[in-house]
Amino acid sequence: MSWEENVRKVTPYTAGEQPSGKVIKLNTNECPYAPSPAVSERMRCLAEMEAGTGAGMLRKYPDMNATALVKAVSEVYGIPEDRIFAGVGSDDVLSMAFMAFFNSDTPVIFPDITYSFYDVWSELHRIPYRTLPLDEDFRIVPEDYLCDNGGVILPNPNAPTGVFEDPSVIEKIIDFNRDRVVIIDEAYVDFGGKSVLPLIDRYDNLLVVQTFSKSRALAGLRIGLAFGQEKLIGYLKDVKFAFNSYTMNVPAIELGAAAVRDTKYFEETVRKIIRTRERTKKELRALCFSFADSEANFVFAAHERKPAEEIFKELRARSIYVRWWNKPRISNHLRITIGTDEEMDTLFKALKEIVS
Amino acid sequence: MSWEENVRKVTPYTAGEQPSGKVIKLNTNECPYAPSPAVSERMRCLAEMEAGTGAGMLRKYPDMNATALVKAVSEVYGIPEDRIFAGVGSDDVLSMAFMAFFNSDTPVIFPDITYSFYDVWSELHRIPYRTLPLDEDFRIVPEDYLCDNGGVILPNPNAPTGVFEDPSVIEKIIDFNRDRVVIIDEAYVDFGGKSVLPLIDRYDNLLVVQTFSKSRALAGLRIGLAFGQEKLIGYLKDVKFAFNSYTMNVPAIELGAAAVRDTKYFEETVRKIIRTRERTKKELRALCFSFADSEANFVFAAHERKPAEEIFKELRARSIYVRWWNKPRISNHLRITIGTDEEMDTLFKALKEIVS
Repeated sequence: MSWEENVRKVTPYTAGEQPSGKVIKLNTNECPYAPSPAVSERMRCLAEMEAGTGAGMLRKYPDMNATALVKAVSEVYGIPEDRIFAGVGSDDVLSMAFMAFFNSDTPVIFPDITYSFYDVWSELHRIPYRTLPLDEDFRIVPEDYLCDNGGVILPNPNAPTGVFEDPSVIEKIIDFNRDRVVIIDEAYVDFGGKSVLPLIDRYDNLLVVQTFSKSRALAGLRIGLAFGQEKLIGYLKDVKFAFNSYTMNVPAIELGAAAVRDTKYFEETVRKIIRTRERTKKELRALCFSFADSEANFVFAAHERKPAEEIFKELRARSIYVRWWNKPRISNHLRITIGTDEEMDTLFKALKEIVS
Repeated sequence: MSWEENVRKVTPYTAGEQPSGKVIKLNTNECPYAPSPAVSERMRCLAEMEAGTGAGMLRKYPDMNATALVKAVSEVYGIPEDRIFAGVGSDDVLSMAFMAFFNSDTPVIFPDITYSFYDVWSELHRIPYRTLPLDEDFRIVPEDYLCDNGGVILPNPNAPTGVFEDPSVIEKIIDFNRDRVVIIDEAYVDFGGKSVLPLIDRYDNLLVVQTFSKSRALAGLRIGLAFGQEKLIGYLKDVKFAFNSYTMNVPAIELGAAAVRDTKYFEETVRKIIRTRERTKKELRALCFSFADSEANFVFAAHERKPAEEIFKELRARSIYVRWWNKPRISNHLRITIGTDEEMDTLFKALKEIVS
């Protein structure tokens, strides 16, 4: 016998490539612009404090409640602090929420085409699950979610499709499922969608998850948030603190707080990305791409003649990285992150050559 | 029926208090000195990059392999990069290791008096476990660990006792258990103990875990490390990446790398703490405290007359925080972190009043 027999078997994860050198990186939905200048300002300030004599914050454990960040979010969003939970990116928040709320023998439900970690966390926490097919236009079939289940998770806008469902559609699902927790994953909601955050007043079974990795340009800091009524957030905290109390580090808490307070910069950044996205849609259409209308910071497009895999490889040869999955139903699609206008112009030029 | 029926039931965690205001904080084993000046220097440098135009690192996802940090550790420790794993504090590293390596139906084993998260993670990952009693002097009974088991975890020095076992004792346990993974948790090893790191060459079942939270004064950054042979580390990475690829953020990776390279500062800090600890032992003995000899940055002491709970409360009333647990076998002990010489002088003065 060997110790290897007791090693946990996992399916290795394939992340979007993180190439170095001079490339155009449109494959991981990062923000093409820097975070708010308030972030570097605060970082300089923290550096000063650390350089001083003992006034620094790094030698001590971080505040496990991430109060500075939660307070800032509370003020900016107009939501009480005890309705806010912060974690190490929305991946951490979601995994924690799966663990906290999905403890039924009845399967949790989510779309067949969606964020690739939902089934991973279900398996990690031994949660039964069932996927519900999107329709031909990559839209959810709302009635499918009015069924017996152990919990619901829905991204809105969905990924990698970019398709957004109106809050009224989502509300019906939340309302039907009042005896289970419904998680709405709003990672991309800032790019033109409408949040269901106002619904937390009415539904104690609703958890809304957001992230600083996209619209706030802070993927490198790992900050995710969850919003819900006090009781729901309380349970989430209990689970988090029971297993690992100190996960968000001091820079994440402090720089995240600085970023969220700069509403003006945030709105400008989002506006720029939306403008570039709408221009991208026009250009892609002209090149004979089709796609469901996207309200995210990416477009999920298929070409009318040229297979996605070929386009993907030819772009890669030109140092332009987009995302392609060799998976049922979506293997002819490319997910293209919205970059700067200059980056997109280079993309359009390359695509013109590739598809003609 | 309500959604609350499916909420995971947990035992809430009680952390060492994090009081604010002017207090003497000897309750969470933090380092009383600031981290290396190289840390604030690097932070200033990162702030400059972020303030510039697009050269910043925060908008992008962090390097999931934490290469900058792993490279620095590799150079300083003289251990190849593929034998090093980095995570969000040793809590994250250990929890991940439990999940990766302890998948047997036979119970894993660890001491009855030890770090309070081992049983928590066992329960989290549904791992059967069995605790083995320390002897009357709070030492492990090495023969107890030569038995059928599903894996072994031992802290050395142990916490909260501070007792250190010679690597030759540990090696016998590793050697006997070659068909299971043995984890040695060396959170406190830098304060006078001796690491079993050299043994990883000889034993492919040995995982050594360390942290930057104590001797490197970076509890606020959350950095933990694991060392082992390539195969063992490979399995650990597979598990980590499968469930959450991006957990260490950019500041942790970059500032951690800067800290580990400053060997001189590290050695000076550790030397100061050891000197203060030895003085603390003398003072405590003079005040009729007894304790097992500690090789950590704390002393675990009991008074010959006055109950620990009373001392704990009277110290607290004087704004001096130490740690006390109302648990079997240790309820008459206080765990006192080694602070600065000034802080310890204030403590001795207070104790003199309290116990006389």
